[in-house]
Order: sequence, then structure tokens, then C-alpha cells
Amino acid sequence: MTEAPDLPVEALFFDVFGTLVDWRGSISREAPGLIGREIDGLAFADAWRAEYQIGMEGVRDGSRGYVRLDVLHRENLDRILPRFGLQDLDEEVLARLNLLWHRLDAWPDVQFGLSRLRRRFRLAPASNGNIGLMVDLARHNDFVWDAILGADVARDYKPKPAVYLAAAEAMGLPPERCMMVAAHSYDLKAAAACGLRTAHVARPDEYGPGTGETAPTVQVDIAAESLADLAEKLGA
Amino acid sequence: MTEAPDLPVEALFFDVFGTLVDWRGSISREAPGLIGREIDGLAFADAWRAEYQIGMEGVRDGSRGYVRLDVLHRENLDRILPRFGLQDLDEEVLARLNLLWHRLDAWPDVQFGLSRLRRRFRLAPASNGNIGLMVDLARHNDFVWDAILGADVARDYKPKPAVYLAAAEAMGLPPERCMMVAAHSYDLKAAAACGLRTAHVARPDEYGPGTGETAPTVQVDIAAESLADLAEKLGA
Repeated sequence: MTEAPDLPVEALFFDVFGTLVDWRGSISREAPGLIGREIDGLAFADAWRAEYQIGMEGVRDGSRGYVRLDVLHRENLDRILPRFGLQDLDEEVLARLNLLWHRLDAWPDVQFGLSRLRRRFRLAPASNGNIGLMVDLARHNDFVWDAILGADVARDYKPKPAVYLAAAEAMGLPPERCMMVAAHSYDLKAAAACGLRTAHVARPDEYGPGTGETAPTVQVDIAAESLADLAEKLGA
Repeated sequence: MTEAPDLPVEALFFDVFGTLVDWRGSISREAPGLIGREIDGLAFADAWRAEYQIGMEGVRDGSRGYVRLDVLHRENLDRILPRFGLQDLDEEVLARLNLLWHRLDAWPDVQFGLSRLRRRFRLAPASNGNIGLMVDLARHNDFVWDAILGADVARDYKPKPAVYLAAAEAMGLPPERCMMVAAHSYDLKAAAACGLRTAHVARPDEYGPGTGETAPTVQVDIAAESLADLAEKLGA
């Protein structure tokens, strides 16, 4: 039993892709059936996700205006299709593929962990996913959020400081009373630079067995093995 | 039993002050105790609320940048204090008074009505209240929202079209698949002009017995007596 640290935190902000939901498992399971051809689901999921950071760069560096992640996911999809011989897929199938990101399955500890944390803290996703996508993911996985924050509210993408600061401001709290929860050290480093407290959650299998961060590579306030462990460490 | 109209609506957006929560009853009950002097609670609530539209005008007409409703509520409060001989109140009392808007009580039909509606529709407040205020009202009254939309997301105030359009866009839906629910015809008229469907809920006692809108003064898709009646009429 760890002693709850003396943190005056009132709101927890969550990274979602990889931290709460298993995008790789979900996309690789669902995509081949939708496409209706023999394809390597894991390779397809990995290729699609590999375009993720590149897709957001134009918004982050100001060379294009803000567009929501649904639009970027579709652009990223179009970019990888030829590599899988799928450039002839119907528009309807492509639209349904893009919506797979709206019904990714959560890691098994998440629903229980969020319920427990919500008894003590205000909870919101601070994801690069757009609001509609977050609404659908919450319904799919029975998450109860207090608000949906993140890229759509800031009209910019993490790790830009505006996203963390807009989340704290929307919650009506100074950054130091907010905590960013993520499985990715770069996300936590950026949040900490804005004055937020930080908690790392280990997701060792995010990109396949043994490929994710088992521990943070930056200084954090809490390092947890799961959301239940985080709840325990926060005294929730 | 009314036949459910054939509306392809997927999301319901709610006005909050007056439509879901009884600001007048709540402020008039709570303010005198906080102030600690003999004052006419109803007159105080009415005076404070009477500054509401004036407070937002500067943002709507562009003569000042967006500031959230918490800030306007405090400016409005400062304006009425002399009328009640309260200009000497402590800063701490004033801050606590301002937070009364974060814990207004819902009308008695709301919690049940929203639960029923949420089984079929995505639900979000599209209020002029800021996100933090909406989060606190939801916790106080056990509302479960899919997202918090409204002024903070649009950075403008109803009835400006940007607020309704930003809500639909955030939900990832065209306006005609969204329905605005309000007790105020001006709000519904503005939403309809943006292409949203509209539902009126009668709140005959909003400003005191027999003072509110018992029926819409504009054309609407549905006129309901309560949220349970709305659920019935929407087939939820």
C-alpha cells in the first residue's frame, strides 16, 4: 500500500489512444472483416498508426488550419491503401474503416479504474481525438466523463502547450491542480512543462508484446501499472 | 400516447439555466445564508439574473474578447451589490456567492428525463455557461452528459449562430440531425435558423409563478411539458 502523495489535484486528464484503449488490437481485429480480403491486420493497424504524428504536424506547425482527427485519420488511411493493394476500396468501406477509431476497445483495467477515480476527481480525456470520436469511444466502453477536453477545445494538437493549458482553463483550475495521465513520456513531459502534475500508466504491449513503455523515461509524480493502481496511489 | 415524429435526430442539445435548473429558486434560497444579512432573496436573484443578457452583449457584438460566464456573473454581481447595500461584502463571500451558479438545483423532472433520453440520444448542454460550471452542475444533479458543448467551445454566446453550429460540428453531425431543447423561444428560433430541429419545454414558473413560457411563441418540432414528456414524444 503506497501512501497517497500530498497533491492538491482536482481533475485528471487522460491520454486515450494507447493509454485507455488498445488501438492496435482493435483495428487489427476489425479491419480485415470490413475490408473483406485477406490482409495482415496487425501490419495494417501499425501502418495506419505510423502516419499519426506526421498527419498532425501541419496543424502543429501552423502550415494548415485546425482539422479534426477524423479528417487526418482518413487522409492517413488514403496514404497507406496502395501499400496493401487497397486503393480500389469503395468509399462506403473507407468511411466505415475510418469509424473503427470510434469503437476501439479499452484495456481491461480502464472501466473499473475510471469509475473509482471519478468518485474523487473530475475526469476528462485530453486526447488528440475530436469530441465526436471521444463521445463514441465513451459510449462503446461505458466511460463516464465530466467533460471532453483536448485537441478540439484547443484547436491544436498535443504536445503543443495550448492543449494542456486549455484543458485546465476549461475546468476552471490552475494547471498545478490538474494531472495528466498517459502511457507516453513525451505527453507527460509536455504537460509538466505547462505546470500540470503527471502520472504514467504502463502499457507494455501498446505496439505489440513488449514494445510499449513499461516505465516513464521522464520525471513524473506517480508511476502506475494500471488505472486501479493509480486510484490506489491517489487514495481514491 | 403521441406518435414519435419521423426525425433523424441523433443528438440533443440542452439549454440549462431555466430549462434544466431552477436558478431563481436556488439563488434565492442560498444567497441570504451566504451573505448573512436579511435580504430579499428573490429580488436579489432576479436583479442578478436581469444583468445576464447585458453582460454577454459585449462579447456578442465583438467589443470585447470572449470571457467565460463565471467572469460575467461576477461582474454582474458587483453591479447589483450597491442596490442591496452589499458593497462592503468580503471578497471571500463574493467568490462563494458567484459559485452558487455551479450548484443550482434541477427541476424535478430532469434527472429521470435525461436518463431516459440518453438511452437513445447523445446528450450535451449547449449553454452559455462555461465548461467548469456545467461540470459542477452535472455533479450536483447527477446528470450524465456525453460532452459539454456551448459557449466555451464556440467562444461566443447564444443566440449567435456560431454556438449552435459549433455544437453540431463537435458532435460530428449535420445541424438537421441535432435538436436544441429549451424553455425559451428566442433560443429555439436561433437554433432553427441554423438548421437544427427544436423542442420546447414549458417552464411556466421560471421567473416566478406564471411568468415563464407555457408554450413556444415560434414554430418548433416538438412542444413538451417536461423532459419525460419529451422522451415520450421522441419515442425514447
